[in-house]
Formats: sequence, C-alpha cells, structure tokens
Amino acid sequence: MIPFEVLATDPGSNARRGSMLTAHGRVETPVFMDVGTRACVTHCSPDDLERVGTQVVLGNTYHLMIRPGIEAFRALGGLHKFMRWSGPILTDSGGFQIFSLPGSRTINEKGARFKSYTDGRYHQLSPELSIEVQTAIGSDIMMVLDECVNSTSPREVVHAAMERTHRWALRSLAARTNPAQALFAIVQGGVVPELRRESADFLTQHEFDGFAIGGLAVGDKRSQREDTTAFAAELLPRDRPRYLMGVGTPPDLLNAMLAGVDMFDCIIPTALANQGTAFTSTGRVRVTRLPSYLDESPLDAACSCYVCKTYSRAYIHHLFKAYEPIAPRLLALHNLHYYHSLMAESRAAIERGVFAAFAKERLEQIDRHEHAAQRLHVA
Amino acid sequence: MIPFEVLATDPGSNARRGSMLTAHGRVETPVFMDVGTRACVTHCSPDDLERVGTQVVLGNTYHLMIRPGIEAFRALGGLHKFMRWSGPILTDSGGFQIFSLPGSRTINEKGARFKSYTDGRYHQLSPELSIEVQTAIGSDIMMVLDECVNSTSPREVVHAAMERTHRWALRSLAARTNPAQALFAIVQGGVVPELRRESADFLTQHEFDGFAIGGLAVGDKRSQREDTTAFAAELLPRDRPRYLMGVGTPPDLLNAMLAGVDMFDCIIPTALANQGTAFTSTGRVRVTRLPSYLDESPLDAACSCYVCKTYSRAYIHHLFKAYEPIAPRLLALHNLHYYHSLMAESRAAIERGVFAAFAKERLEQIDRHEHAAQRLHVA
Repeated sequence: MIPFEVLATDPGSNARRGSMLTAHGRVETPVFMDVGTRACVTHCSPDDLERVGTQVVLGNTYHLMIRPGIEAFRALGGLHKFMRWSGPILTDSGGFQIFSLPGSRTINEKGARFKSYTDGRYHQLSPELSIEVQTAIGSDIMMVLDECVNSTSPREVVHAAMERTHRWALRSLAARTNPAQALFAIVQGGVVPELRRESADFLTQHEFDGFAIGGLAVGDKRSQREDTTAFAAELLPRDRPRYLMGVGTPPDLLNAMLAGVDMFDCIIPTALANQGTAFTSTGRVRVTRLPSYLDESPLDAACSCYVCKTYSRAYIHHLFKAYEPIAPRLLALHNLHYYHSLMAESRAAIERGVFAAFAKERLEQIDRHEHAAQRLHVA
Repeated sequence: MIPFEVLATDPGSNARRGSMLTAHGRVETPVFMDVGTRACVTHCSPDDLERVGTQVVLGNTYHLMIRPGIEAFRALGGLHKFMRWSGPILTDSGGFQIFSLPGSRTINEKGARFKSYTDGRYHQLSPELSIEVQTAIGSDIMMVLDECVNSTSPREVVHAAMERTHRWALRSLAARTNPAQALFAIVQGGVVPELRRESADFLTQHEFDGFAIGGLAVGDKRSQREDTTAFAAELLPRDRPRYLMGVGTPPDLLNAMLAGVDMFDCIIPTALANQGTAFTSTGRVRVTRLPSYLDESPLDAACSCYVCKTYSRAYIHHLFKAYEPIAPRLLALHNLHYYHSLMAESRAAIERGVFAAFAKERLEQIDRHEHAAQRLHVA
C-alpha cells in the first residue's frame, strides 16, 4: 500500500492535509496534478513545471499506447525518462477517453475495441492491457480501467457500467505485477446516492492504494456534481487518498477540498491559457479583450509567478494579437502557478485549522468577481 | 558615430573580428542577430535568448508601427521595456516589407502608402516617419527606409530604385533626432557591379554609423549573391560595421564573413524549427522523418545547448507527431544556439588568424552532409 498519512484535519470541514510517498517522491495533499496527456504538459518543459510548483504529472494510457506505444516505453525506459520528469506520475487508464473520444468503438466484458486516430488501425484495451501499458510507462499511480457512462443515463445503464467497473477493477488488481506502482480504484454510480454507496462499499473491501470518484465531469449539473462529490468522499476510507477525476474550476476544487478530496486534475488552466484567459486574484482576465492595450501592470499584481514578475498586460495582449506562440505559453505558466498557489494556500489553511473560513472567503470573492464580470458584460 | 573597433583581421581572407558599442551594450562581431519582427523572437522569451547566446534582437518598423503602434511605444517607453530585452536592438526600416508583403501599396518620392493587414486602414511610411517610429521604438541601430526591387528587374528599374534609396537615406539622416541611436545606410544596386559601386561611393560620403548590403535576399541566384556580397563588402569603409540583410544559411554566413561582413539576420533558424528541421554538426535533421523513433541520442551529440543536454531525438520526434507546441520551441532554441555557436567559433578563428581554413573546413563539411542527404533521398 502506498504510504499515505493524514497530517492535519480541518475542524470546520472534512478537509484534510496529507502526505503520500510515491516511488518518485513525496506528494503533499491536497494536490492539483498537471495534465500531460501525451507525455507533455502543454507548453511546459520539466523545468517550467518545477518553476510553477507542479508535484505530479498526469499521463494518459489511451493516448500513450497509441503514440509512442508500449514498445517505445519498454525500449526507452518509461515515461519519466522519456519526458525528463523525475517527479511522481499518475496515469489515467483510458476508460474516459474510450467513452468520450469520437470514432468507432465497441465495449464488451472483455474490454474495448477502438480505432486509432493516428493510423485507423484497431486497438484492444482491456483491464489487463491497461495495467500492462501503465506498467511499461512506469507510472507511480496507475488507475483501473473503468466503464464510463453519461451520468444522466437510465439507472439500469449506470448500474450495469458500475458493476462492470467493479469486475474490471478486480481484474486490474490481479494484473498488477509491480507493487511499487500504486493502483487506485474508481467509484462509479452516476449521481445516484445508493449506487455510489454500493460502489464504494464494494471497492473499499479490496486492497487498492487509493480511491477515485469517477464519472463526474460530464452530463451532470454543478449542484449534482457537488452533492455527489461530498456524498462520495464521505464513503471512502479516511486512511487512503481520495481523487476527484477531471475536476475542475477553482470553486470546484475549494468545494471538493471542503468535502475531503485530496487529489485533482483538470485541463482548465492550460485550455483557458490557449484561449487567452488568465486566472487572477481579481477574477478571470480575457487578455485579448483588455480594456486598454497600454496597461503596464502585470496580469495579477498579487501574483509572484515569473510571468507576472516579468511582463506587462500590454505586452501579453500584443503577443496574443500577433499570434506569437509564446503567448499561450506565458498564460499556461501563469495559470498553473495560480492553481498550485491555491493548493499551497489551502494546505496551509488546513494546517492552521482555518480552511472552512479560507474556502468561504475565496468562494465569495470568486463569486463577486464573476458577478461583476457578468454585469460588465450585460452593460 | 557608433564606436566600432576592428580587433583582428584574418590573414587568409577579408574576415574581421570587431566590437561595437551600442546604447544597450557591446556587440561582438561577426554577429548573427535574432529576428524578433513583432517584438518577440518566435518561441523565445528574453531569458531564453540569453541562454542561446543572442547579442542583438531585430525588430521591424513596418510590423511594429501597425501593432502595437508608435503611440504604444511612446506611452510604454520603447521596445526594450515592452519586450523586457535589455540588450541591443536593431530595427529594419520597413522598406523590404513594403516591397514584399501582399496587399495594395503605392510608392512615390514621398514614401509608400500601404494597407494595414490588421484593420485594412491605409498607412503612410516615409523616410521621416520610419525614423520617427524607430526613435519611439528606441532602437540602438536604425535603418534608413530603402526602395527594394527584385534584383532581376531591368537595369533602369534597379538604377531608379537605387537613386531614390540614396535620396531617402539623406532624408533619414536629416530626420534623426537622437544621436545615441545609430543609423545605417543601405547599399542597393541589384547584382550590377557598377551600380553597387555607385551606391557605395555615394552613401559612404555621408555620416552613417554603418552600411548594409540590401536587396540580396530575393530574385538572385546563390552564385550572384555571393559574388555581389564579396564585391559590395570591399567597397565599404574598413572602420564601419557592414551588415548583410536577411542572409542566410550557415554557408551563406561563412562566405560572407570571408568577404568581410560583420552582421547578419535571418528567419531560417526559427522558420526551419517550425517545420521540424534542426541544424546539427552532422547535417540537417528532419525530426519528423527520423529513421527510428526510438533514438535515445540527442539531436546533436556535439552540441552543448539546453535541448541537447536534456532531450532525446525520440522525445522531440514524439512532440512533433503529437503537435505539442513545445516541439518547435525546442528546435528554435537549438537552432539559434547552433547559429550563435557558429558565430562564436568564427570570431575565435579570426582572432587566432585561422578563419580561412576554418571556414573552408566547415563549408566542405556542410557540403558533404548535403550530398550525403541527397544520395539518401535519391536512394
């Protein structure tokens, strides 16, 4: 079992401050993990990641088995060496991609059969093969292959996918060969409390290193997502890390930390950077729509990142207008720094026992900025 | 006059090792200047430039007057502050862009009238306005506005453009207000030796800080370009810096240094990086066409740059295949380092008095690699 210790709990909420020891180093939780789907966190080299405060990089089994492929990882010695990242790596199993990516695919009890987007050839992905690929990748935390369905599907559909996810989880556990690579199970059950409870009850009887809350990134409303997260987190053992997959915005993270979640990943910081949006202490800034292109101030006067210490809004605005490829890169560095700072401040607030108040204040602040932006938009 | 000193000359060629003192620091020549057309060297931040060995950044008056515009430079305090580059900046006048960029434009004695590619509005660019913009940009070395024509044009056309370039050069000199900003004239005359001589004779009678050889990037054959460069360089005063505009490949630079040229700029290192081509000590490498995608060696085993010290060919190949935006960035950093290393080695060879032999060996080496690559391509 992966060493995981709860160092402090928040008296006003279910938030926890933890520490997890992987084969490639320690992870302080709650943690936001940077999405590096195709062996690269978009726009960032490993030294950039160190600079923004990244602890864990998340790779994706589906994408990495298509390119560069399992043989490449075997020949080249795994993903750490391939991308020159010496810190912890978590790999998603590919279940979500098989569910969400376009193209022909069929799923049965054995696994999934899907068409590669690179060469049109058909690939199989089974629970066993997903573990085999993740083993070759050398990830520190592997995920079981799950069957994802839209959470608004009929209950029978959600129920059947949950039960298959359970059977696949046990097959994944049996397929693991290297005990130094942790393996997390994924709780499914859509937005139906009884199914979530059934899923958690089943999976927590087995020797998984941690537990993820899956299936909450698509098809459900924000309030349902928050309710389900809070409910699902409470069903999970206190002595194991809890991971909310694919979530989310800063308010999503704050709410989930209040519910006791320890780990997160999301493409939002880099995806919004590509669109020209920066997270700041005074709300989101659409760089290309700055009211003045002569603004000499940094993106965020309260931010200590390299980008804010170096460049003016005027210059970043110009870089976007001129389609310079460094423009989204600078916003990606800033946004990732914003996320990691939010997590570091949250960890400190839990340690001080004041996280409930901290989260409330930050949530209200973000809410005020969003309302102000909406008024501006309407006016 | 900008302080410029010839520190050493090569006994076997016309090559010179010089040093020039600009308002933003010293430039060791021969120098390759990085093209930062729109206030950014593509893919590079100022700390990247320091890392690859950049001495001078080249901005472009035409592009910068369109965006962010002269008012922005006045309000924000010039290009150095805008892009956070504290080293020397040279600005091209916009003459070449007015000649080469598509869109409606008319040229008469007063100047050029052209349609902006950003908003379709018409702009004027005269010798006086070009200097006014370059003054606001705060460039350390300004260029006169010239009239470029295709060097294969009829002799009367080349002659008329040359004479207009002379009149515009004198108007530019008269328009300069800040003597701390150097001003270079541009020798024109196509590939006609008598016209090149007439142009050099005329321009060198005036108090320009340096002299450029213009009009040699388009329409002429390589041998004509080399002959004209060698001929034109000899016509220029020995105590002033000589700048060959828009050139070129590594063999172009070596040949022009042999002819006594001190300064160069070209988009080739970054443009080829975008296409996936790296310069190496064993020839050009097309990263996407590497014979093996499992190659653990660096791009160039003889290279000391950050990219070669960090990443394998296998990984860079993968990044290109996956369309990760960091892929062309890594090649840009490597290619610029290659160019700056070539110049540093050339400077050292001139100091040691062995540049003729050094250049011959490098030219033969590059030639062998190109022939080998062609044979491979044919086979």
